[in-house]
Amino acid sequence: MPPKRVIGVDAGGTKLLGGVVDDRLVVHNRVHRLWRGADREETLRIVVEAVEELRAAAPDAAAAGFGIPSLVSGGRSVASVHLPLDDVPFGDLMAERLGIPVLVDNDVNAAVLAEHRFGAAHGTSHAVMFALGTGIGGGLILDGRVYRGATGAAGELGHTVVDVDGPPCPCGGRGCLEVLASGTAIGIAGTEAARAHPRSALGKRLEDDGAIRGSFVTELAHAGDELAREAVCSVGRRLGAGLVSVLNVLDPEVAVIGGGAVAAGDMLLDPAREVLDTQGLGPPRMRVVPAHFGSESGMLGAALLALDAAA
Amino acid sequence: MPPKRVIGVDAGGTKLLGGVVDDRLVVHNRVHRLWRGADREETLRIVVEAVEELRAAAPDAAAAGFGIPSLVSGGRSVASVHLPLDDVPFGDLMAERLGIPVLVDNDVNAAVLAEHRFGAAHGTSHAVMFALGTGIGGGLILDGRVYRGATGAAGELGHTVVDVDGPPCPCGGRGCLEVLASGTAIGIAGTEAARAHPRSALGKRLEDDGAIRGSFVTELAHAGDELAREAVCSVGRRLGAGLVSVLNVLDPEVAVIGGGAVAAGDMLLDPAREVLDTQGLGPPRMRVVPAHFGSESGMLGAALLALDAAA
Repeated sequence: MPPKRVIGVDAGGTKLLGGVVDDRLVVHNRVHRLWRGADREETLRIVVEAVEELRAAAPDAAAAGFGIPSLVSGGRSVASVHLPLDDVPFGDLMAERLGIPVLVDNDVNAAVLAEHRFGAAHGTSHAVMFALGTGIGGGLILDGRVYRGATGAAGELGHTVVDVDGPPCPCGGRGCLEVLASGTAIGIAGTEAARAHPRSALGKRLEDDGAIRGSFVTELAHAGDELAREAVCSVGRRLGAGLVSVLNVLDPEVAVIGGGAVAAGDMLLDPAREVLDTQGLGPPRMRVVPAHFGSESGMLGAALLALDAAA
Repeated sequence: MPPKRVIGVDAGGTKLLGGVVDDRLVVHNRVHRLWRGADREETLRIVVEAVEELRAAAPDAAAAGFGIPSLVSGGRSVASVHLPLDDVPFGDLMAERLGIPVLVDNDVNAAVLAEHRFGAAHGTSHAVMFALGTGIGGGLILDGRVYRGATGAAGELGHTVVDVDGPPCPCGGRGCLEVLASGTAIGIAGTEAARAHPRSALGKRLEDDGAIRGSFVTELAHAGDELAREAVCSVGRRLGAGLVSVLNVLDPEVAVIGGGAVAAGDMLLDPAREVLDTQGLGPPRMRVVPAHFGSESGMLGAALLALDAAA
């Protein structure tokens, strides 16, 4: 009997990654889409079209799982900071347009499910995940299961307040970890360094392009540029403050760091670990590790939702 | 048959409250002790002596429960910010000296147990408690049970980082909620106001006494003093930042606020609620209420530990 196959979709703040995934977690086909600035209807259309492309390659796909960057309650996108999906019956709409069973969860709830079941948090009972990208998503495994809270909205680790008088956050709050320690924040730290040192490599890039992205700062840092390296480290130290809060409140065994910004590796994670181990309560004990599935944990977790339902 | 009776002890950062408590949660006798500055052996001696006083009044007491302001793991006080109880086998020592069964938990884990079972969080499945006193203690009810994390250290809501570049905290961290929103913080806010306005009532008190306590600021605010009122409100707004983090990460139904500082009532809680409802993710939904058992929830929760074990 051939393995059962489903579709998993990770709908991030700036891009979508979808795949046909079998019950051994092998990915057979992938699709990518960018959608910065798309409105609600366009966003939904892009999702449906991406799934239909995957179904054309895998007509046997039994169900589709979605991870979306929203507060999700009963398949409904209650609110979303990074996509125009406030108060959208996402699950019902997808089921209607696709005609197959549809499962929906928060994107990082899906990601932490994959990392817990088969990845960097395997074998633990208490784990958290930070996904560092455009913003910061979060997911929690408590007592061995994804923890969703009273209304399904739990786990938004990017929206812990780490700077009570800090800059406004796109969520409507102030000084959220997301503003200070996301991939976007690495770009901002690099831009500030470029302005302070206009003759540096960062400064020249800012002059040429008018903007600096986090991924460029990370590349330059990997190549040995000290200024870029310090920009990444400064963001790592702020991530450390978020890790301290998580340790002190939830006492997990491991914090898994995913999302595009984890490309910075230990250059980002070592300063975070240092803050954690010197400022957290009690003996150092929480491991801080990169996501095992890299940028694919959300997509694989979304597929797991569908595989569990189809089992 | 007379009701079963136990001893409950809430050992706070500056004082101890103990009681003989029966299985209908009626308190029959109470003892109070102050111990600011006592060393480890003196602290343990005061605890034993207070319990012995209660046992003299209730020789039938079947067990003793303790809430202590420590990270507690297996009855051991692993670390404590406010008492000299780092790495102390507290449960074993008490059992040895008292000769009755002894149960030990973090003080606010005990308090939230009482508030969840019979108080302000009754009927909920997801609740948190902040105890605002010398510092800020915390406790979590998740999925209907006290949540302790991987090593027993979870729930330290006072040590979420809300000001990443903020002042040092006694715990070794920086900018913890405890520094900005405890009862002590109300005294500090009052002292700052007194310095800025030396001819105010706060200013005169500072000149007379050389120091201002949070309880005095609260009394003055209740009496209508605007400067004192603003000091209390400013601390309430910072507490609000802590509530935003808790809502976004744990999505509880209710936050119970206990400890001495809750004497400020809605003057403290209303500004906190306003920050929560305007800056938290998703629709306003988490209630913020004072502890039903006031300053006795910790002692009653400690008694519940002993009653559960003796049942």
